Amino acid sequence: MLKENLDLSRLFYPRAIAIVGASPDHNSLGSLPIRFLQRHGFPGKIYPVNPKHKEIMGLACYPSLPEINDEIDLALIGIPRQFVLSALRSCAEKRVPFAILFSAGFAEMGAEGKKAQEELKEFVKKTNVRIVGPNCIGIINTHGRVAASFTSGLEMDFLLPGNIGLITQSGGVGNCVLTRAYDRSIGLSYFISSGNEVDLEIADFLEFFLRDERTQSIALLLEDLKNPKKFLEAAERAFQVGKPIVALKVGRSEKGKQAASSHTGAMGGRDDIYEGFFRQKRICRVYDIDELLEVAHLFASSKIPAGKRVAILTTSGGSGALLADLAADNQLSLPPPATATKEKLNDLVPAVATISNPMDITTQFMNDPEAIGRYLLTFDQDENYDLLIINFTVSSPERTKKVAEKMAALKPSLSKPLVVCWPVGSMAQEAFHCLQKAGLPLFFQPAHCLLAVGKLVRLSQASEKY
Amino acid sequence: MLKENLDLSRLFYPRAIAIVGASPDHNSLGSLPIRFLQRHGFPGKIYPVNPKHKEIMGLACYPSLPEINDEIDLALIGIPRQFVLSALRSCAEKRVPFAILFSAGFAEMGAEGKKAQEELKEFVKKTNVRIVGPNCIGIINTHGRVAASFTSGLEMDFLLPGNIGLITQSGGVGNCVLTRAYDRSIGLSYFISSGNEVDLEIADFLEFFLRDERTQSIALLLEDLKNPKKFLEAAERAFQVGKPIVALKVGRSEKGKQAASSHTGAMGGRDDIYEGFFRQKRICRVYDIDELLEVAHLFASSKIPAGKRVAILTTSGGSGALLADLAADNQLSLPPPATATKEKLNDLVPAVATISNPMDITTQFMNDPEAIGRYLLTFDQDENYDLLIINFTVSSPERTKKVAEKMAALKPSLSKPLVVCWPVGSMAQEAFHCLQKAGLPLFFQPAHCLLAVGKLVRLSQASEKY
Repeated sequence: MLKENLDLSRLFYPRAIAIVGASPDHNSLGSLPIRFLQRHGFPGKIYPVNPKHKEIMGLACYPSLPEINDEIDLALIGIPRQFVLSALRSCAEKRVPFAILFSAGFAEMGAEGKKAQEELKEFVKKTNVRIVGPNCIGIINTHGRVAASFTSGLEMDFLLPGNIGLITQSGGVGNCVLTRAYDRSIGLSYFISSGNEVDLEIADFLEFFLRDERTQSIALLLEDLKNPKKFLEAAERAFQVGKPIVALKVGRSEKGKQAASSHTGAMGGRDDIYEGFFRQKRICRVYDIDELLEVAHLFASSKIPAGKRVAILTTSGGSGALLADLAADNQLSLPPPATATKEKLNDLVPAVATISNPMDITTQFMNDPEAIGRYLLTFDQDENYDLLIINFTVSSPERTKKVAEKMAALKPSLSKPLVVCWPVGSMAQEAFHCLQKAGLPLFFQPAHCLLAVGKLVRLSQASEKY
Repeated sequence: MLKENLDLSRLFYPRAIAIVGASPDHNSLGSLPIRFLQRHGFPGKIYPVNPKHKEIMGLACYPSLPEINDEIDLALIGIPRQFVLSALRSCAEKRVPFAILFSAGFAEMGAEGKKAQEELKEFVKKTNVRIVGPNCIGIINTHGRVAASFTSGLEMDFLLPGNIGLITQSGGVGNCVLTRAYDRSIGLSYFISSGNEVDLEIADFLEFFLRDERTQSIALLLEDLKNPKKFLEAAERAFQVGKPIVALKVGRSEKGKQAASSHTGAMGGRDDIYEGFFRQKRICRVYDIDELLEVAHLFASSKIPAGKRVAILTTSGGSGALLADLAADNQLSLPPPATATKEKLNDLVPAVATISNPMDITTQFMNDPEAIGRYLLTFDQDENYDLLIINFTVSSPERTKKVAEKMAALKPSLSKPLVVCWPVGSMAQEAFHCLQKAGLPLFFQPAHCLLAVGKLVRLSQASEKY
């Protein structure tokens, strides 16, 4: 039976989507998903459903679900609460396996809403329709070009395929992650807004990610766990298959808990219990949106270092000192280079510096990408190190691009993870794009860079202990 | 005598600048400052000096300083170390009051370099030429359009005038601040790279800022203090005149201290001593580049709140919970709104929420800027609050722009500081520009936003106690 052996493939790769309550009204829940599905090249069929219209956005509009003469894999429902159950019954009648409920006004809205959500729960028990939501903003599958959501971030030019699976209990924060990731050329594999989770919940989506080849790391925005036991089991399996989970849990504080609770009917729960869950299942905890994104991205894109010994190369002594401080904050060690490294690089040592760690290569080599390549390869071969960080402070478009191209070309030759920190403005954006295209992890804030590297290192240590 | 009553106005507003060792070589220290002075519309005269050339970049080139038939206020010197003293003697002969030494190879470079720096020091004692550097990247005066620097960030399209005075002992980190500020439309009043500080030092520049009307807050990138007593006196006066100092001190850790010391010959010094200085003089300490920029910007652009009672308005319950957590981390309080506020806004309460703090106004009002205006004005009038934060999660270009325009228009009517947090991608950049133009502090990372607000609040508390 479907519910026992959950297969979400038709949810994430639907062949046909029906929009129940489709509307020509530009900014409505019945219109935006159609626009976004079209904009992002959904390869399947789109069926607007609304008895009041013959055609919506160039598509034939159907009076009801059963009247569509096609197999529907997914129904999107954004109509007022009082009509939701009836729409779901149509889904059952039409044998639609999945419905996403954008509609709000359920458990997050007082006694009446809670009652309505209970009715949904009863419905779920009796049918084979599996539900995402209610009170959610939908799902996105970047690889399959399925933008089954009304989130405003979908006004982006294109979906950016990637390997981070995002599950968010907050639609708003989800949109933040989506758009900030896009700006950084960081792709998601799937975006899932789970809403009130009357049926499908975080653990179900986790299980899907575990079997999905495109997802390498998992980012969670958590308000509360409906079913901790099921979550912990899924998290355990995620750890076993080497797909690390990064979690931003909101509602840590008393006021934060109240805020979370009033908006999704979340129970909240004591933060120390969550902290215990995270430690037990090696879930990496972060405290802000960009951290969630950056750590998940580093986990998804970097090799795991063998240990915590880091070499820092910089073009500025001051930034070397800054990164060294931040490395210490994150329990990383900065051993000096081996004698062989010093000998190999002796001819490159600028007049004002020595071969050391942090290594100040000075800005003079920004005109000499070959020398930067030699530095990187030599430190990469130094057995004293497990991971390399290179930090640039120069920003001129021309020179930064050449250096980035050199590093991109060099990447396949490196045996250790290389992380780039380049805390300058967007005038160097061509260099940034070049690194991003090459899959080199790129940070703009040294503190975030060292935090993420610290977490990557502890991930490897957790694996060893396990 | 000049040295007793230091007036740096000719340094920052020079009528004529000589470039000693001027060169047509595109990327050299003798060429870049000429290009940048021209690019950014320096209103004074530029005199290249080099006996080997008749003309450089369209300017008549002079064989030596004394042969220029004009009064020179500032000489830029980027020639090899061994020629520096002779160039400085020409400056003295020509009665040039200020010289910026880009040249490296002094105290940061072993025994020989230290000796050369001692010679410079002797020279300074005997003449009236005041020196910035050596081993610095120069100064920028945005209001006066003086780009007397070779830093690559000057390839930006224009200088952005502002009210943060930056003094950096690290040229590289200085370039990071400069370019990241530019990206955020955050203007500096002055950019000062102080280098090895053989003569003019941080305290001298601080004193200049205290008397400068354009500078409202001061950002410091510190490796070490050459003269702590003088610094503490200047910091004391800065506090008295209400120009807050924000400091990023690098070399906190053992490895960081070594890195700083090897590159400018800095002594380093125990971090707890610096921590004591900062506490004593109410200097606000930060730990990364963007924090330095963002806190200095908030200090320079916001009113000081009367206390720590913050109202948080958001378009998403999850982000409300996140911001509430971060507010607690930063010792801010989130009292509930007064009854009058609840009554005034009763008709606006969306079906799913109540008037509370954090206040989830939901995304529905993104189509109704007037309602957002009413929310802001009503919370502004609520005596339970000292400062307002509004956080948006919607990113669509069209709607965000209208909301931003409303807030910009509203700003003069608000009695309390308003801080905007908008952690979405650049698709909302027109909205961002609108807020930046209106002088509304804008953050993209909730953690940075609440950190800066926390520091702003403690600034007010420090003032009260003083």
